[in-house]
Amino acid sequence: MGKEKGEKLTFQLKTPKGTKDWEGRDMVIRDKIFSTITDVFKRHGAVTIDTPVFELKEILAGKYGEDSKLIYDLADQGGELCSLRYDLTVPFARWLAMNSSVQSIKRYHIAKVYRRDQPAMTKGRMREFYQCDFDIAGVYDPMLPDAEILRITSEIFEALGWQGRYTIKINHRKILDGIFEVCGVPKDKLRTISSAVDKLDKSPWAEVRREMTEEKGLDGDVADRIGEYVNLKGSRDLLAKLSAHPTLSANADAKKGLDDMNLLFDYLDIFEVTDKVSLDMSLARGLDYYTGVIYEVVTEGSAPPATSGAPSQEVAPKKGKKKPTANDPDEDRSSDPTVGVGSVAAGGRYDELVGMFSGKQQIPCVGISFGVDRIFSITKARMEKEKATALRLNEVDVFIMAFGGKGFDGLLKQRMEVAKELWNAGVKAEFSWKVKPKLPQQFKQAEQGGVPFAIILGEDELAQGKLKIKQMGLPEGHPEKDGVMIEKVNLVPEVKARLAALAEEAAVADGAARIKIQDRDDVPNEAPAIPTVS
Amino acid sequence: MGKEKGEKLTFQLKTPKGTKDWEGRDMVIRDKIFSTITDVFKRHGAVTIDTPVFELKEILAGKYGEDSKLIYDLADQGGELCSLRYDLTVPFARWLAMNSSVQSIKRYHIAKVYRRDQPAMTKGRMREFYQCDFDIAGVYDPMLPDAEILRITSEIFEALGWQGRYTIKINHRKILDGIFEVCGVPKDKLRTISSAVDKLDKSPWAEVRREMTEEKGLDGDVADRIGEYVNLKGSRDLLAKLSAHPTLSANADAKKGLDDMNLLFDYLDIFEVTDKVSLDMSLARGLDYYTGVIYEVVTEGSAPPATSGAPSQEVAPKKGKKKPTANDPDEDRSSDPTVGVGSVAAGGRYDELVGMFSGKQQIPCVGISFGVDRIFSITKARMEKEKATALRLNEVDVFIMAFGGKGFDGLLKQRMEVAKELWNAGVKAEFSWKVKPKLPQQFKQAEQGGVPFAIILGEDELAQGKLKIKQMGLPEGHPEKDGVMIEKVNLVPEVKARLAALAEEAAVADGAARIKIQDRDDVPNEAPAIPTVS
Repeated sequence: MGKEKGEKLTFQLKTPKGTKDWEGRDMVIRDKIFSTITDVFKRHGAVTIDTPVFELKEILAGKYGEDSKLIYDLADQGGELCSLRYDLTVPFARWLAMNSSVQSIKRYHIAKVYRRDQPAMTKGRMREFYQCDFDIAGVYDPMLPDAEILRITSEIFEALGWQGRYTIKINHRKILDGIFEVCGVPKDKLRTISSAVDKLDKSPWAEVRREMTEEKGLDGDVADRIGEYVNLKGSRDLLAKLSAHPTLSANADAKKGLDDMNLLFDYLDIFEVTDKVSLDMSLARGLDYYTGVIYEVVTEGSAPPATSGAPSQEVAPKKGKKKPTANDPDEDRSSDPTVGVGSVAAGGRYDELVGMFSGKQQIPCVGISFGVDRIFSITKARMEKEKATALRLNEVDVFIMAFGGKGFDGLLKQRMEVAKELWNAGVKAEFSWKVKPKLPQQFKQAEQGGVPFAIILGEDELAQGKLKIKQMGLPEGHPEKDGVMIEKVNLVPEVKARLAALAEEAAVADGAARIKIQDRDDVPNEAPAIPTVS
Repeated sequence: MGKEKGEKLTFQLKTPKGTKDWEGRDMVIRDKIFSTITDVFKRHGAVTIDTPVFELKEILAGKYGEDSKLIYDLADQGGELCSLRYDLTVPFARWLAMNSSVQSIKRYHIAKVYRRDQPAMTKGRMREFYQCDFDIAGVYDPMLPDAEILRITSEIFEALGWQGRYTIKINHRKILDGIFEVCGVPKDKLRTISSAVDKLDKSPWAEVRREMTEEKGLDGDVADRIGEYVNLKGSRDLLAKLSAHPTLSANADAKKGLDDMNLLFDYLDIFEVTDKVSLDMSLARGLDYYTGVIYEVVTEGSAPPATSGAPSQEVAPKKGKKKPTANDPDEDRSSDPTVGVGSVAAGGRYDELVGMFSGKQQIPCVGISFGVDRIFSITKARMEKEKATALRLNEVDVFIMAFGGKGFDGLLKQRMEVAKELWNAGVKAEFSWKVKPKLPQQFKQAEQGGVPFAIILGEDELAQGKLKIKQMGLPEGHPEKDGVMIEKVNLVPEVKARLAALAEEAAVADGAARIKIQDRDDVPNEAPAIPTVS
């Protein structure tokens, strides 16, 4: 394209690499995801703030470790040097540091972030993508905001219709640090060993062990002791066993983390979230700034393709028992949008990030970021699989049309007047932008848009002060299949009554669907055995 | 900041020049503006699309004339060269050219655009700012989409509460071209003379005339003839006089433009928009790509400060009669957010832009862009002036609190359970994240948030299966001032019934406010005299 001989154009007609246009059906699905998530945030009292799409370059510097190379810079055109934001957390911390009068806030922020990463479009891994963040800043009694974040997370995935299809993996940085210390990791290797453990969702243990010992110089025995811990997954039983473990609970860090976790589970019980949660010692989270509870939401498709040799990370798998079980082990699923998308939400407590900006005052924070593009990819694939009913692209409620015999002038003025009357009453309405449209064309336009009602004007009927209202798509034999004559003066109340009845029907159908929601029972209740550490 | 001695920080804690964070009250006002505008777009059947924040550099090249120097480029970090979008129109045209299966669409797009301009923050002139665009693409019968755009524009400003405070200035590129030709402007000077005329909203005629003659080499007599036309303002009367003018209507361009305009006014009459419109021969619009009707919405504060020497452009002023009338002629109003903001919305028909990308197929388009940040600045200033009632920052409906005597344990578990029950029912609810909060603290937190209802838990009441619901802010002497005891099992229906009643009250109050809307009568009905052109 572009430079071929004879072509007038001298440029490529495309969006930049790793970016895309959102339109049509996709846009409608994404908007529904946004409004579902926003509704839950607002239900919990959140407000939103909006920060610029670029920050001073130095604000982002030193916050993302190795990933800093993925930051997009703006060209130096004179003046300040700026970079596109990489996430919404650092701008939030910068904002808190700048606004020292704000000592507490629940804020959400839905916006695009930018990473010069290798894109994988079908999985929703893009260079420009949306994040949907919710964070709580402020000093409160322990674990209460943390518990509410997990409650919010669960409300969101339930509202998205993912019942039984997601697991919130949780862990605590201080428990991990305690385990590493107890296993014999030197203090100066804590963070780097934690980074290696974080790769367990993508790589098998043997590979992570090799990284620890060969690349990071950890003693093989120490690595093996870590290996016994990090494969532990469970619920309160596991927490009870870890808490009762003499060596671990004697470690100050581990003790603090376990106490936090016990309190958190008490609160999660009250909030009815415990059955969605899996305590997972392999969860470490890559970013350095976490200081307490960490979590990551995984779903059926979070794991890499089963043929890659990595252990499958299906929802709460039994330890070490899961083998690749794809129908065809040679099948290439790397472009399957429901496989290998990684986590769909992640976050944790970061009590010291604001201090990196304010230089003085710390404001403890805890938050979560929802990967909307990944959630979108999975939602769309499921809708296609489940042959979801047709999604409407616009929201028009009434299509105004006209018909007539020989010499029919199109009744344009009358159609416009009816439209105006409906718009004045707040009703969503359209009509054909043709002076003399044919009736089949008008019906086609209304049907393509999925418009529920047609208002049909005819010269004779108008002369008697009447017009016809017809609900589209009624079955043959329905008494109102051909529409109903109404008085023109009653247009607005007649239309509104029918729209209200239709909305009521839809609400009832929606309610019936909700009643079918079942409790899940696929998270293991039995805790695995705890390794004995000397 | 940053580099001072003894400081730990080595960077400036700020947002980049010309950008800002949006938060609190401002954010709430802006969100209300967005949702008001979006509601109107959807009422007219629009869908939305979302394009990347940056485009390939070459897509933007050659679209903005002199203003191209204001485009932000991304740094060359390898790979494609990209620039931040400058408006939403060019990305829309690029999208249409890429998606040739789309032959018609009504789309809106609300997103940030970027211009390396000199910022004037108080007036809402920023380097990063929101635009709110609505465009109709496709082949339709003449002037029908154009009329609907102006109807949408009027619905939006009415919905924003600007009744009588805005004027939609309209003109037609072909009428302008006809006037220039009739006045004797050489063909090759048409665009450059049009650009000069466009400056009449900021500069006095003498200055514009000087630019035409001294800078652009136009004959003085020709300029004077143009001067007689471009000061014409009016309504259908002016249009009738221009249409009846023998020399002008003999010009092919002018004839085409005048015919369009006559049809447009017929449609605007039906849509009841005519009284908001002023036909204004000084309106030229800077961008090259317009091909038909053009328009610009001005409001009380659109003109530059009256002390600048430029003619005031108050809503439909009488030609040449307006003098600076500020209370104090020396008063510096350059930082007054309600003065000199320029137009608050602008657009027109551009039938040839898509062809610049597709190279083959033209798709005629007509659209409008709302300057949301300017609309915001004016709305906020008016709200402050009119001492608008307190704006709530979050949407919480219920604050759950507890109290008790000596040995009171805070009833945390019970508060959390009530919250969970309300959230399950979709009710927006909060409680204090303290284990043992004091009652006055809890009331203070609820009052600060403007929460309408409190649920108050007491040990004795809970033991009897009861709790108290209290509407906040009831006047002394109200029978329910101290709250009402309800059965705990009826919590959700009791809360929902009260919320519904409150919403009903608010809707009635809102309806009453709308009934007060008056028709405006400040647009002159009499057309000024038309100059005689030999």
